[in-house]
Amino acid sequence: MKAVIISIGDELLKGHRVNTNAPFIARQLGTIGIPVSRIITCSDDPQSIRVAVTSALEEAEAVLMTGGLGPTNDDRTRTTVQELLGRGLVFDEPSFERIAEMFRRRGRPVTEAMKAQAMVIEGSVTVPNTKGTAPGMIIECAPQFAGRYLVLMPGVPVEMEAMMQLTVIPFFEPLSGAFIRHTPIMTMGIGESQLSGLIAQVEDELPSGTTLSYLPHAAGVSLMVSTSGSRKEEVDEQNRRVVDAIVERARSFVYAIRDARLEEVVVETLLEKKMTVAVAESCTGGLIASRLTDVAGSSGCFLQGLVTYSNEAKVAQLGVDPLTIEELGAVSEPVAEEMARGCLERSGADIAVSTTGIAGPGGGSPEKPVGTVCIAVASRSGKGDVTVEASTFSMHGDRQQNKARFSEAALRALLVRLKQPGS
Amino acid sequence: MKAVIISIGDELLKGHRVNTNAPFIARQLGTIGIPVSRIITCSDDPQSIRVAVTSALEEAEAVLMTGGLGPTNDDRTRTTVQELLGRGLVFDEPSFERIAEMFRRRGRPVTEAMKAQAMVIEGSVTVPNTKGTAPGMIIECAPQFAGRYLVLMPGVPVEMEAMMQLTVIPFFEPLSGAFIRHTPIMTMGIGESQLSGLIAQVEDELPSGTTLSYLPHAAGVSLMVSTSGSRKEEVDEQNRRVVDAIVERARSFVYAIRDARLEEVVVETLLEKKMTVAVAESCTGGLIASRLTDVAGSSGCFLQGLVTYSNEAKVAQLGVDPLTIEELGAVSEPVAEEMARGCLERSGADIAVSTTGIAGPGGGSPEKPVGTVCIAVASRSGKGDVTVEASTFSMHGDRQQNKARFSEAALRALLVRLKQPGS
Repeated sequence: MKAVIISIGDELLKGHRVNTNAPFIARQLGTIGIPVSRIITCSDDPQSIRVAVTSALEEAEAVLMTGGLGPTNDDRTRTTVQELLGRGLVFDEPSFERIAEMFRRRGRPVTEAMKAQAMVIEGSVTVPNTKGTAPGMIIECAPQFAGRYLVLMPGVPVEMEAMMQLTVIPFFEPLSGAFIRHTPIMTMGIGESQLSGLIAQVEDELPSGTTLSYLPHAAGVSLMVSTSGSRKEEVDEQNRRVVDAIVERARSFVYAIRDARLEEVVVETLLEKKMTVAVAESCTGGLIASRLTDVAGSSGCFLQGLVTYSNEAKVAQLGVDPLTIEELGAVSEPVAEEMARGCLERSGADIAVSTTGIAGPGGGSPEKPVGTVCIAVASRSGKGDVTVEASTFSMHGDRQQNKARFSEAALRALLVRLKQPGS
Repeated sequence: MKAVIISIGDELLKGHRVNTNAPFIARQLGTIGIPVSRIITCSDDPQSIRVAVTSALEEAEAVLMTGGLGPTNDDRTRTTVQELLGRGLVFDEPSFERIAEMFRRRGRPVTEAMKAQAMVIEGSVTVPNTKGTAPGMIIECAPQFAGRYLVLMPGVPVEMEAMMQLTVIPFFEPLSGAFIRHTPIMTMGIGESQLSGLIAQVEDELPSGTTLSYLPHAAGVSLMVSTSGSRKEEVDEQNRRVVDAIVERARSFVYAIRDARLEEVVVETLLEKKMTVAVAESCTGGLIASRLTDVAGSSGCFLQGLVTYSNEAKVAQLGVDPLTIEELGAVSEPVAEEMARGCLERSGADIAVSTTGIAGPGGGSPEKPVGTVCIAVASRSGKGDVTVEASTFSMHGDRQQNKARFSEAALRALLVRLKQPGS
């Protein structure tokens, strides 16, 4: 079984919106061994939809469509598919109840007009919309296209994503006929070419059926080990063996063997160790605090953050010595150390991290160019002493990329300290 | 003239990479009045490329392809197009010189093998690659497809982007026969349906040649007014008239008539007024500070940020009265007001904003459900008095969406205060 994805929407064709729905759907289908052979983006006029759907159903057994569904889109997708398959609409009571309940909860009236939104194409499996109003549909397209399935979903990402995970993937999994296993390996502090060198032998000897992809992101590179085959046990076993071989060679750079952001692993480690954290940021401007507090449950370990952008704030809020700033400049390891120490002592946290650097585009100098950052971590040793260590890094991005990479390096420094014996 | 875009690459079909090339190309073509009727993403095997190119040339006068070009891709696109059009390859001296020069500059040897990369399809216009090695091509496809153009570009975004701007757009501009003008209108604090109601009359009376798109984003909705026609002056004039009519009706919600983020407008306004800002965040966890400091030049107005996640930090860092928290809860307008006032007074800033709320998924209650946020703004009036005002909002998203919407509401509150007479 293979799939074609159709993304409907004029804003996609104009380039005013990046299509993130199609890659989400492709990744989800990948987890159950259904490859995508084509992605078509077309206009929401009925003729374009008709041409795209017809060619897609000729090419693949599963055709997944997003967009052109729901009241503001005049339900053009639903109408066009109806005409193509020559089917009527039927009222779907559970969908109507769901829509009515959503309006009642928000204190808004339930009207007869809402019934139109709860109409689905005859003979389809309803895909409940747990995040919005218009329901999705899975339609077996016999007799015109026997053994072919058409999936209609709204274009709103959160609605489509919930539908894929709760209904569409469970529906197609038994039909796929293939088992596939993807294992992400998340690394930090290593570039693509260096990582590739480390694991060259594993890559050269990859068993057939297993592929290895490099997924570079803002602040590093992750790996995806994908294995497919017809027997689940063999697929799992082969995948596990390759993952183990990679982790053995790159152990000190791997921070997770699952799809986890660095901040999630930091928060989990803090909670496990029952430790609290505080953050003192200059050039990252609150991004480290924001990333840590993106993680649900972070209130159990995150005490406070300080964004001390000005020198005055570094002195007043963190007790940095004005002489240190004067002699060495705000972007220096001693200032980073004083920031981390002040943050630790004033907040009462068990561990603290600080950043001071130059995100750009202005503010650089020959000695300290844009992209320079000093990062310090302070933590308490057993007897109440404070250990502080600083490092300097150089990044090469624009302002937002630099902020992202600085914050990644700071989270990495936190995690390395947390993993040290005795901390 | 219209266009089809073909994006080639297995990593796009697997969903491991988001296709940002196609929207870039579409926006560029939009500026010279060439609409895109379809975007096709296909595999890099020759059969897939052949099917995609043939159907695209039947549909549109201009077909722009990215990917499958260059040494690591085995030049599959070039070979497939060659076979399809029955043409040979010719050596392009300027491309070879460019490649050789690039290698010399990096101190690497120039070899005969590099000549293969400088081969272009017979009868094509070479598109110089100023950022990499493999040249692009513009091919007039007569006799098989008379009056149709095929553009071959590499998939590396920086290489493709430079080619589009320097060669491809100037090539197609005289062929397009249309002028187009897009004007974005950025709004805040209003939903799609309410905005649509406000400007219903303008929308009903849109002149032909002008379209209006709604672009909802995490925290609001923006509009794009697009006008096309054959005479530049008329296009500009018609576009301006529609934009003026919309702005007149929605004035209090419009924060920019250009593609600008809310934080950019806040920072610009602060700098214009020579005012400084400080931020006290609970539930937004540093996101407001991070967004403000994303803006280059923000160091000229951003004094400091405090992320006071715990009640203790609110008391110690901002001077919030513990009794207020005890009596009314941390998520209450009086606590938000005390946070903003404390932040203003302790930082010495001219204006301060605070947030306290429940981002979720935990921490909600029937009276204060997840998504509740209290936001306060404090500023100094002429005589040194401090004015503080708080409001409460309800959002309906997951943790990260709520943080984004809370921060948007806080930036909005800042901007509204900044725009008040006398501030």
